[in-house]
Amino acid sequence: MNTADAILDMLRDKGKVSGEAIANRLKVSRTAVWKAINTLREVGYVIEGDAKGYVLTRTPDLLLPQEVNGLLATKTMGRRIEHHYTIGSTNERARQLAEEGCPEGTLVISEVQETGKGRIGRSWVSPKGGIWMSLVLKPDIRPRDAPVLTLAGGVAVTEALSRIGVQATLKWPNDVLVNERKVCGILTEMSGEMERVHYIVMGFGLNANFPLEDLPSEIRSRSTTLRKEMGEAVERKRLVADIMKGFEAVYGEAPSSIIERWKRASSTIGRTVQVVTKKGFVKGLAKDLDGTGALIVRDDAGQETTVYSGDCQHLSGLPEG
Amino acid sequence: MNTADAILDMLRDKGKVSGEAIANRLKVSRTAVWKAINTLREVGYVIEGDAKGYVLTRTPDLLLPQEVNGLLATKTMGRRIEHHYTIGSTNERARQLAEEGCPEGTLVISEVQETGKGRIGRSWVSPKGGIWMSLVLKPDIRPRDAPVLTLAGGVAVTEALSRIGVQATLKWPNDVLVNERKVCGILTEMSGEMERVHYIVMGFGLNANFPLEDLPSEIRSRSTTLRKEMGEAVERKRLVADIMKGFEAVYGEAPSSIIERWKRASSTIGRTVQVVTKKGFVKGLAKDLDGTGALIVRDDAGQETTVYSGDCQHLSGLPEG
Repeated sequence: MNTADAILDMLRDKGKVSGEAIANRLKVSRTAVWKAINTLREVGYVIEGDAKGYVLTRTPDLLLPQEVNGLLATKTMGRRIEHHYTIGSTNERARQLAEEGCPEGTLVISEVQETGKGRIGRSWVSPKGGIWMSLVLKPDIRPRDAPVLTLAGGVAVTEALSRIGVQATLKWPNDVLVNERKVCGILTEMSGEMERVHYIVMGFGLNANFPLEDLPSEIRSRSTTLRKEMGEAVERKRLVADIMKGFEAVYGEAPSSIIERWKRASSTIGRTVQVVTKKGFVKGLAKDLDGTGALIVRDDAGQETTVYSGDCQHLSGLPEG
Repeated sequence: MNTADAILDMLRDKGKVSGEAIANRLKVSRTAVWKAINTLREVGYVIEGDAKGYVLTRTPDLLLPQEVNGLLATKTMGRRIEHHYTIGSTNERARQLAEEGCPEGTLVISEVQETGKGRIGRSWVSPKGGIWMSLVLKPDIRPRDAPVLTLAGGVAVTEALSRIGVQATLKWPNDVLVNERKVCGILTEMSGEMERVHYIVMGFGLNANFPLEDLPSEIRSRSTTLRKEMGEAVERKRLVADIMKGFEAVYGEAPSSIIERWKRASSTIGRTVQVVTKKGFVKGLAKDLDGTGALIVRDDAGQETTVYSGDCQHLSGLPEG
């Protein structure tokens, strides 16, 4: 543990602590204590000091490792966190770490992304207040079996939102919606040989606490944020920890079970949809997912098409029942 | 074109050329000409010089871009070559270039690999005299459709060897054999999203001109080199250019056609094989490939198993006919 983290622990534990007591306990100089206190103040901790010692009076809303760590109830996922105030893309950084051999469950979090990435080469607007994070996975599977894992990410987010009272649903393949507006997207990338995946990076982009006006006008009407839906800010660090916990559980399940959970959380199955694919578009009833996570669409003539990728639009309202 | 390449062109074209003529033609200083000549000499060109000028008397056996370029008859493949005297792994370097956005067809060649990679995390011994090269591809396909492309690589090598009189065959999935001994391996790696490949790197490791004794004893008995099989050294640069040409042609074909060509070049189909997979082993008659390139094996009881990955061993001799 570094000095700053150790000081935070002491302040949380004891209330008021003198600089001398900290220095003695941590076996560092008084100057080192003073420097660490200043670093903590710079990143947003309010630490008041007088002749008798230091008191922590406010913890900032940042997704710092020491903040998230204390809430984590996982064995692997999020156990190593790399935090950035700003970064190009958390997925890109996570891929770098994976190439360097980081352990499974390594999580890259940034308060802001400058060049956040969406699916199919699109950009992803990532202002301050959102949750922008990328998780490194190292499953022992073939590339053809990877799409089911991306469904597991959507299930984890949707279920975590339910637990804080937000009724979220999944739109195929992996958009998380609240009141039919997008609140979270997932970008899964992988690297591997033909027969085995070396690593997967799963990027979560969750519109948490920023004003909807921070998004460009062209996507605003089909987007929402948790703050807007809940009427108050969400505790981001607790949500991150809860998504990690939920993901770890669903990640360990069999593909058929992941698909079942996805279907329960989804609002796509049973509706009329239009899916724009590379080859054109498919319109009809979203009937089911197949065993690989592909969407089975039945058109008016009763013809069924299996769609592996594309942009899905919900055309009809929610099915009854 | 750099000065050294331009000088080589002039020497090849005119026989003897004075330093002054070169400097005038290329609009560079006499010192620059002298430096470039020295660089060429360092990499193995023998260039003799007297008061009247320079003469090229020997071209080294190196896979330098300027050597290979002149023989290339392709539109894309190998059109940009990065040459190394030694490197860790050409696949790794090619992946780096792909991440940086290099064009399709970029080819990384090294005279030696220090930490060459084989399939499934194995190492690949890569002494001087072999052909160690990695090609960057950017096909617009899904990861699940990528294994067929790796078959295309095997087809291109086998057919190129046939054209120089070496009867090579393919062992599933992608080892090139001569007299049932391995002469070439192919390691295909990819990076992408769930629905689309960003890039593929196809690494070719071809035992060309080195003595078999340069391989470790444990693989020597099942390996061979082109020099051993042909009784003389192969012209590596011409072979590289020819593999690129063949690959470009087969790469453009439909998956079903690639699989047909693979089957024609293979000695696996029709034989008794044992395939060691992650889950155990499959033994029986190698009956066919399915539409994705997976091997269909029929056991003694008539039960058919589709094998997606594993190490295949030929148990029986070649089928007749």
